[in-house]
Amino acid sequence: MTHTRAVDTRALRWLDPPAGPAVVLLDQTRLPAEEAYLTCRDIPALDHAIRTLVVRGAPLLGLAGAYGVALAAYRGDDVAAAADVLARSRPTAVNLSWGTARALDAYQAARRAAGDKDTAARRLAADAALARARAIEADDAAASAAIARHGLSLVGEQARILTHCNTGALVSAGEGTAFAIILAAHRAGRVAQLWVDETRPLLQGARLTAYEAGRAGIPHAVLTDSAAASLMAAGEVDLVITGADRIAADGSVANKVGTYGLAVLAHHHGVPFVVAAPVSTIDFAAAGAADITVEQRPGEEVTTFAGTAVAPPGSTAHNPAFDVTGAALVTALVTEHGVVRPVNAGTLQRLGTGRG
Amino acid sequence: MTHTRAVDTRALRWLDPPAGPAVVLLDQTRLPAEEAYLTCRDIPALDHAIRTLVVRGAPLLGLAGAYGVALAAYRGDDVAAAADVLARSRPTAVNLSWGTARALDAYQAARRAAGDKDTAARRLAADAALARARAIEADDAAASAAIARHGLSLVGEQARILTHCNTGALVSAGEGTAFAIILAAHRAGRVAQLWVDETRPLLQGARLTAYEAGRAGIPHAVLTDSAAASLMAAGEVDLVITGADRIAADGSVANKVGTYGLAVLAHHHGVPFVVAAPVSTIDFAAAGAADITVEQRPGEEVTTFAGTAVAPPGSTAHNPAFDVTGAALVTALVTEHGVVRPVNAGTLQRLGTGRG
Repeated sequence: MTHTRAVDTRALRWLDPPAGPAVVLLDQTRLPAEEAYLTCRDIPALDHAIRTLVVRGAPLLGLAGAYGVALAAYRGDDVAAAADVLARSRPTAVNLSWGTARALDAYQAARRAAGDKDTAARRLAADAALARARAIEADDAAASAAIARHGLSLVGEQARILTHCNTGALVSAGEGTAFAIILAAHRAGRVAQLWVDETRPLLQGARLTAYEAGRAGIPHAVLTDSAAASLMAAGEVDLVITGADRIAADGSVANKVGTYGLAVLAHHHGVPFVVAAPVSTIDFAAAGAADITVEQRPGEEVTTFAGTAVAPPGSTAHNPAFDVTGAALVTALVTEHGVVRPVNAGTLQRLGTGRG
Repeated sequence: MTHTRAVDTRALRWLDPPAGPAVVLLDQTRLPAEEAYLTCRDIPALDHAIRTLVVRGAPLLGLAGAYGVALAAYRGDDVAAAADVLARSRPTAVNLSWGTARALDAYQAARRAAGDKDTAARRLAADAALARARAIEADDAAASAAIARHGLSLVGEQARILTHCNTGALVSAGEGTAFAIILAAHRAGRVAQLWVDETRPLLQGARLTAYEAGRAGIPHAVLTDSAAASLMAAGEVDLVITGADRIAADGSVANKVGTYGLAVLAHHHGVPFVVAAPVSTIDFAAAGAADITVEQRPGEEVTTFAGTAVAPPGSTAHNPAFDVTGAALVTALVTEHGVVRPVNAGTLQRLGTGRG
């Protein structure tokens, strides 16, 4: 595991032999100060990178899980055990376990077809896992483009859009989820202002979304998360768009902490609240909010900043990484298959069965 | 203007000659890392201290303004001009202009009574301004105690209270406003948990309220401002109590940014939302929200932290210091005269005329 600089600015890429096998990650904890890359050559390194948020964001975690399975396979590791480690790295984003499971399925099917004990069979199975990871990556890029296309229909002229956390190219093989819609709207000349919630505690909005908005030339301003309410009261927000880390079968949306509060505020002020996510984010095994585990992260993320204490020694913190928004507060869900509106168990079920 | 260490931990105190005249301030920007004191010997120094939040909090700003007028008077400055400078240091907290005006009134009345041109008359007038400042200080301590006593009636057993920003002894000649109620409830054995909003961008909750809660032995945890919503949804908050920087005649409450969002969330979840403030915080000259100027502070408070950039170079930020909550969202207002409930133009008017 080494930090290097690279020209390729993709947030995640696979490195073939002889330089690899490895998964190369843009270290998102160092942005925007520097663009540094972390080369993960084994599962413990990748697991650590996921836990420490070097790589983050729902769709990208799916890729990290899938490529991680391929990495374990080429290394000759116990692939099922590696998949299990990766799937548990972070509990809330369903894409991680989804991507891991899909690559593991491809690996195991190829092993069964070719004979379990043979080295050549192992190599074929690793190729199958890698092919599955590449397919997930291609699908994710296509899904991102489709989400942007469908979501554009929800953005009016001169729109003032508020977003939370980071949902662009840094979390996707394409241009992201919510941010892909915002980019499409910007290219269509419809974005008058993008309001960027800083997104405490790790400031993904201030650090990453402002960085992506700046690169794209979108007029934008960063604000503290708690300033969103008065912006809405002043009529300065036409639309809220966020991503999602897991969507339950009843339409409950788990996303970065603060999303639920925004949804309540949007409802109170009559502002549409839109969620953008690929269908892979929907977890039909989770019936509702009670079935979604919300990751609690270390209190130090709140009580310290860049090594400096911002609370007295010994202070405890309550630091959930996510919250869950009930479907009734979600105006529309944008997936690669189109816009789902209203969001409820019935409309999601039709989406899951391809009849959405 | 020098930094010194002192044993007296009051947030503001007057220093008589020969060491003074001066206003000594506990530098709240350095807490909790260190308890340092700033001695302001002239109006530019005090004005700068107010603008940079060395001294802050509605009641304490009233004292700073009043003692500042006394300081100008003893120095032989143009006292009316000094009062004008201090009153404009920060636009939202009404206590600042209120305290300044009261001390100036005392000074000018004494000058008129004693003859304008005489040095002894100037000295008597300075004594009058100082006496008025000391009276405001004593009144504030008494108001704080009365607010605590009245507010205690709103706190049930095993209460889980959420608060925002900092409203304790650091902002008051007594034990504060909202925090004075929390302290009284703690002494009565009623506080099961205090949830401390960190209060971005300047973290007065994490830095100052957690410090005061720790010293008082109140069980507490710090959280990001955006985590309050899911806490309420989980039924973990029984009561929200905040202070106020200015209350309009119709009951609109200007307070630290984020307060309005909390009020909407409390309303949505059926959680009582209580505001605690001395009657001096009510500005009957402001009919409603539109008459309250909300201070916009430098974007760097959001885009940098302790000198480190947390947003890309050139990022702009929207950084209002306050927001305004309509009276309909305020369950009760606690003043030194008792609990006002409901809060509206009529109930406030009765309070202003002593019939509350």
